[in-house]
Amino acid sequence: MEVITTSIEPGSGLCTLINVFTVEPERQAELVKLLEDATERVMRHLPGFVSANIHRGLEGTHVANYAQWASREHFEAMLRNPEAQHHMRAAAALVQKYEPHLYEVVSVHARKAP
Amino acid sequence: MEVITTSIEPGSGLCTLINVFTVEPERQAELVKLLEDATERVMRHLPGFVSANIHRGLEGTHVANYAQWASREHFEAMLRNPEAQHHMRAAAALVQKYEPHLYEVVSVHARKAP
Repeated sequence: MEVITTSIEPGSGLCTLINVFTVEPERQAELVKLLEDATERVMRHLPGFVSANIHRGLEGTHVANYAQWASREHFEAMLRNPEAQHHMRAAAALVQKYEPHLYEVVSVHARKAP
Repeated sequence: MEVITTSIEPGSGLCTLINVFTVEPERQAELVKLLEDATERVMRHLPGFVSANIHRGLEGTHVANYAQWASREHFEAMLRNPEAQHHMRAAAALVQKYEPHLYEVVSVHARKAP
């Protein structure tokens, strides 16, 4: 099976959403599954979707979604989509809080070559 | 000039730090520069450093660092490094709050092929 990877690149022009969810550890797995299902069923079919990258916090109390959209306008159109809203409400109901912010990539720094 | 990119891949075994800084808009640029300098001067020379990806929040009030380390042990060794501590204290002094959490990548979802 092909491994799908996401690239982070400065100057790509993409709009990046980083959404950090705070969750009770016993609901962390359920939240991960909900975000994955919502992405597969709805988000990735929407115009301007580029990628979603679901991250499980090592302490059990957080989940992060690092998502890329072609533009801010595409992201905002998603927010108005009734199906997307349905999934976002389900996620919100599962968590203590969520903090979504939009970003642009300023710079990428790699390890020093040996 | 070569464009450096970062890859996000499930099962890579990397330890991901997502650190979201809340900052006054008039200090956002200064914080970005401080994080870039700290990365170039100190972090990227430390064992286990893989990448740092600095993100500027579109609303002016946030900066995020998406950083990859070879392992949690490498990340924790960095926290004990006096030079790294010096830079982290300087960043902390500039912001209203910062929320660092460690993650593993669970899944990567790409856009639906046309």
